[in-house]
Amino acid sequence: MALIVQKFGGSSVANAERVMNVASIITQTYSAGNNVVVVVSAQGDTTDELIEKAMEINPRHSKREMDVLLSAGEQISISLLAMAIEKLGFPVVSLLGWQAGFNTTSSHSIARIKNIDKERLRNELDKKNIVIVAGFQGINKYDDITTLGRGGSDTSAVALAAALRANKCQIFTDVEGVYTADPRKVQNAKKLLEITYDEMLELATLGAQVLNNRSVEMAKKYNVELEVLSSIKRVPGTIVKEAETKEKMLVRGVTKDTDVARVSIITLPDTPGIAFRMFSKLAASNINVDIILQSVGRNNTKDITFTVQKSHGSLCKQLLQEAFPDITDDKIFIDTDVAKISIVGAGMETHPGTASQMFEALFDVDINIQMIATSEIKISVLIESKDADKAVAAIHHSFFPQD
Amino acid sequence: MALIVQKFGGSSVANAERVMNVASIITQTYSAGNNVVVVVSAQGDTTDELIEKAMEINPRHSKREMDVLLSAGEQISISLLAMAIEKLGFPVVSLLGWQAGFNTTSSHSIARIKNIDKERLRNELDKKNIVIVAGFQGINKYDDITTLGRGGSDTSAVALAAALRANKCQIFTDVEGVYTADPRKVQNAKKLLEITYDEMLELATLGAQVLNNRSVEMAKKYNVELEVLSSIKRVPGTIVKEAETKEKMLVRGVTKDTDVARVSIITLPDTPGIAFRMFSKLAASNINVDIILQSVGRNNTKDITFTVQKSHGSLCKQLLQEAFPDITDDKIFIDTDVAKISIVGAGMETHPGTASQMFEALFDVDINIQMIATSEIKISVLIESKDADKAVAAIHHSFFPQD
Repeated sequence: MALIVQKFGGSSVANAERVMNVASIITQTYSAGNNVVVVVSAQGDTTDELIEKAMEINPRHSKREMDVLLSAGEQISISLLAMAIEKLGFPVVSLLGWQAGFNTTSSHSIARIKNIDKERLRNELDKKNIVIVAGFQGINKYDDITTLGRGGSDTSAVALAAALRANKCQIFTDVEGVYTADPRKVQNAKKLLEITYDEMLELATLGAQVLNNRSVEMAKKYNVELEVLSSIKRVPGTIVKEAETKEKMLVRGVTKDTDVARVSIITLPDTPGIAFRMFSKLAASNINVDIILQSVGRNNTKDITFTVQKSHGSLCKQLLQEAFPDITDDKIFIDTDVAKISIVGAGMETHPGTASQMFEALFDVDINIQMIATSEIKISVLIESKDADKAVAAIHHSFFPQD
Repeated sequence: MALIVQKFGGSSVANAERVMNVASIITQTYSAGNNVVVVVSAQGDTTDELIEKAMEINPRHSKREMDVLLSAGEQISISLLAMAIEKLGFPVVSLLGWQAGFNTTSSHSIARIKNIDKERLRNELDKKNIVIVAGFQGINKYDDITTLGRGGSDTSAVALAAALRANKCQIFTDVEGVYTADPRKVQNAKKLLEITYDEMLELATLGAQVLNNRSVEMAKKYNVELEVLSSIKRVPGTIVKEAETKEKMLVRGVTKDTDVARVSIITLPDTPGIAFRMFSKLAASNINVDIILQSVGRNNTKDITFTVQKSHGSLCKQLLQEAFPDITDDKIFIDTDVAKISIVGAGMETHPGTASQMFEALFDVDINIQMIATSEIKISVLIESKDADKAVAAIHHSFFPQD
């Protein structure tokens, strides 16, 4: 008998009708002869409403009390979903994080799962119950409630699947799967039937926003087969798993990220270690630097250009100017009108033609490339943000010509 | 150092402003040098909103899942109240039922507290924390969440006060204390400074609705001194405690209960045991019978009249007619236009004049008495419901003449 973990996000259980829809997906899986463990997030806007209540009373509340407050959201959704399954006549039990054995680190609001005590879960499965688990929450060693931070319910689901050695972990969302490009923007975007963990990680980072990165990393580490699929339209989704054979180069998708600022510093003195010290400084303030380009300037100087998140642009300038008085206002420039366009696919490094095909597609529609970065499974270019959608369409058309 | 338990109901924490008000009451008590443990109910309409969500999905939900759902209400209110206390700069921690050690019987929705494991509570008090405990909830031996039923937060507070041997248990409500009559109806109603447990129990049963009966019973059993007082108007309330000396007769209050139906069955055959069998039948369907009057009728028959809750009137008729075919429609009558008026006070049985003073007050304003019942500390009469308010005013005026 197979064990399947299913995860439903907040929009999938936003109202009574959707809760009933989710209950019917779960009971169909159960009726097909599977053991089913379900992870569910708080309903639709519940979390935002609770945050608003807290901010009204005390914007500087402790994280401990915020975790107590927010975890009530999943407590509501698990019991309502259990009631919906009871209505369909199936045996079911809802479990809070602590009841389902989720032991986490102590840090409130960003706790990590340390281990899952499986005893209660196993007992409920042995009783043939459908088990509904509150996502996003656990308890720390002081028996205090903790939450796992953004995307926490995905992580809860993958951790459960790993702990219970589930045959599959299905992540239900409001899209049908992972696409070759954003289907709302690119008409010919195609749904992928399969994708590797690494490819999914690159796509997630680049803004596909289907699956939380931590959960994909965990799935890779414990080799949990993931499926991303729609809770509304009952069609096969995208399977995320380890590549079985080294297959031929396949571009999996084209993505756009406009949350980017380009920082350029010109005529820096060419002192050894200056780049290292600059990036250490930024790292200390949790500023992630992405594409980096360094070029030799004139008169023993060099120019450094790199990208950061858009919201970090001005902080970046401030930090660097504090640390390096040489970097005067005429030597540092922040450009926020940029976008990063990427193609993702396993085996890219062995197919040098892929990069030139991408650049050619951009050249054909008169788009200028500002920066280029490549990895084993990804090629990214920085362009002006006004060209972003045109660039995605052109690249997509080149790699996925009209059927 | 004294330990004080304070309980605040849902209306006392209905919005951010009221939560801040409650926080200020608590921190004043703490600043005066007391250890403070607080029990709080779910905010204002939260419980009703949660019930509505459940009914929309499945009106025949299990009680187990309903307990998971409803207990989220106090989880929200304890964390918000803790945040309000943090804002005032005091050390505070919120605890859910299971964290505060509330072990209950297994029966969902009507669980009883078995014991309170005081370890965590003691630790938090040793750390000088103000401790905010979720009322109304606990866990059973299966580690499942249970709720204590109606008025459960009062019971939680009294149980905590008993377990921690608190010096006092203060129940904050939206009235200033216990009155000699309903202050909204009777202009001269006076607040009582003290009252005994037994008197309070009679007043609660009769509809004064200030304190839940179970909590008064528990306070009496463990000799917990209670104070009923307002969370809005900061004046002394009413102390509920054991009578210290056998004092002279004092009528404590006049109450009205209009949730009454009178059932009359006439010309029953005078068979031994028929009354017993009738009342067993009703008890089996959880119908509580209150005042009973039996009189000998004509020709070896008897008449039986009794009162039940208004909503039980027609069910009562149906059950009796099913069990006793002799009771035809011309022999059973239900009158719902009745009200029960009572006076309550310790030592009533030793003051026969009290009853006649009550009857005289009614006679003076032309009110006819249909039935009479007396106990050691209470005298009740049944009258037409249209006369109820007039009767309360007349009796109150007789026992509490204008100052």
